[in-house]
Amino acid sequence: MKLGLNLSFAIKRCIESERLATLVAEDLDTKYVQFTWDLVDPGWPAQTRDALAKDYAKAFKSAGVTVESTFGGLASYTYSHILAPSPELRALGRDHLKNAIDMTAAMEVPAAGMPFGSFSADDALNPARREEIYKEALEIYVGLSRHAKERGLSMLLVEPVPLATEFPSTAADALRLMQDLDGQTDVPVRLCVDWGHAMFEPLFGTDANMDHWAEVVGPWMAVYHIQQTDGHYDRHWNFTHDGLVTPELLRNYWDRYGLTDQTYFLEIIFAFEERDEIVLEDMKAALKLLRAG
Amino acid sequence: MKLGLNLSFAIKRCIESERLATLVAEDLDTKYVQFTWDLVDPGWPAQTRDALAKDYAKAFKSAGVTVESTFGGLASYTYSHILAPSPELRALGRDHLKNAIDMTAAMEVPAAGMPFGSFSADDALNPARREEIYKEALEIYVGLSRHAKERGLSMLLVEPVPLATEFPSTAADALRLMQDLDGQTDVPVRLCVDWGHAMFEPLFGTDANMDHWAEVVGPWMAVYHIQQTDGHYDRHWNFTHDGLVTPELLRNYWDRYGLTDQTYFLEIIFAFEERDEIVLEDMKAALKLLRAG
Repeated sequence: MKLGLNLSFAIKRCIESERLATLVAEDLDTKYVQFTWDLVDPGWPAQTRDALAKDYAKAFKSAGVTVESTFGGLASYTYSHILAPSPELRALGRDHLKNAIDMTAAMEVPAAGMPFGSFSADDALNPARREEIYKEALEIYVGLSRHAKERGLSMLLVEPVPLATEFPSTAADALRLMQDLDGQTDVPVRLCVDWGHAMFEPLFGTDANMDHWAEVVGPWMAVYHIQQTDGHYDRHWNFTHDGLVTPELLRNYWDRYGLTDQTYFLEIIFAFEERDEIVLEDMKAALKLLRAG
Repeated sequence: MKLGLNLSFAIKRCIESERLATLVAEDLDTKYVQFTWDLVDPGWPAQTRDALAKDYAKAFKSAGVTVESTFGGLASYTYSHILAPSPELRALGRDHLKNAIDMTAAMEVPAAGMPFGSFSADDALNPARREEIYKEALEIYVGLSRHAKERGLSMLLVEPVPLATEFPSTAADALRLMQDLDGQTDVPVRLCVDWGHAMFEPLFGTDANMDHWAEVVGPWMAVYHIQQTDGHYDRHWNFTHDGLVTPELLRNYWDRYGLTDQTYFLEIIFAFEERDEIVLEDMKAALKLLRAG
């Protein structure tokens, strides 16, 4: 199986570009990364933002590491984006992904992604409002795919999340989104499925397993996030922690569905107050476990 | 004791301005709030940002709720700001707080705050680099205090955090920062001390209690964040959860130090995947416990 690192583990810690590239290539012996927008905020002024982003891209290239995609992290996920209740907020959500596409293009990285958006608590309970906002969001997203193509990207990624107030959350939701966008967008749109989201039992019950996702949206899944979880919350624990996901399960899934290049990006979110030396040792230990699996 | 709400509990959930103001004033029967930048990103284009922020300010005013300050939340805390390793990142940190001051002014709110900043893992271990960057950050902050004064703010707030790689973390750090800024800034700078940060045992050991903070920086503490914690991590649990902080402890501290208007802002951070109805019931239950304490 092809392992990669989402860079969330490094935010606020190892943020100097060459130092981070060396950490990934040498200390963690990894060749594929997904660059998190928590390192460079897509909303920063374009010239400074692109200079910073290019500096990271150059450092990874020099270290022999491929940045396969860029992705929204904690800061991005704090806002509601294109499913927000007002047209003003939805326009800000559109600009957010537009900015991220520009930054991704500056890095010469082929794909960018994030969750689709979040309904407000009130809208989430109102089927008519959900449908109205969803239709608008589809139009926005089709427009963004045109922008992605113009900037030279070859794919956009959407990450389903384990919340009934967002979209898509279920595999059926994800299938609907893929089918609604299929043939409409200027670059293909695919799913980045997070194992810990898919295995969230409070929302998905007996469907809370990756085989269900493979059955429903198998061909649409281009990338995975992997994390350890107990199925009760979206834990983003590391694989040094006991839980439902084992290296054997990951490898078995990879082999059984004949995956080839749908990188498993380890997306571990440490408490901010966790000590840097513990984070580094924990990442090394988890990668060792995963590689032995 | 004077209870208020930091609005972090509502992000992505109850974000419509009038709905949120009604929730605070009626469902939660609260008159004081600290507005989180997780509702309006200070980095959004100024005109749209200020219109959205003013709309929240107006809604709270109509509901009889006072917005006492605005404060950085999860998205803001994701970046390193004025203690970052490069001049470019520190300038972005300066602009971040400058933007937040502008937004706060647009809301006609008198105070804005956030943690001071975060050293990289490497810089944090290098005393000379720490000192050099700290000196630059002080200059930046003095400049920001001028901007705050020009925009009509009357106070800036700094929140100490439970990480040795940031500054200030200890009460002694916080005292140094207050003394270094005292007399230099155009508006007073005070501390917003989070009980859960102060009680973080892995870093502070036997000093991990609020009496220690009262002794060292008592006069500098203008505002508090309250949260439930076990002292092992920065939990931001609600008071429906067992832990080290009890309503009695909070009231006893308030009375013993003769506090008058240093609002205890309840800052609860729910998992994004927690259900909206659970969040609301939990907030109601916690406020009931706190008011009975």
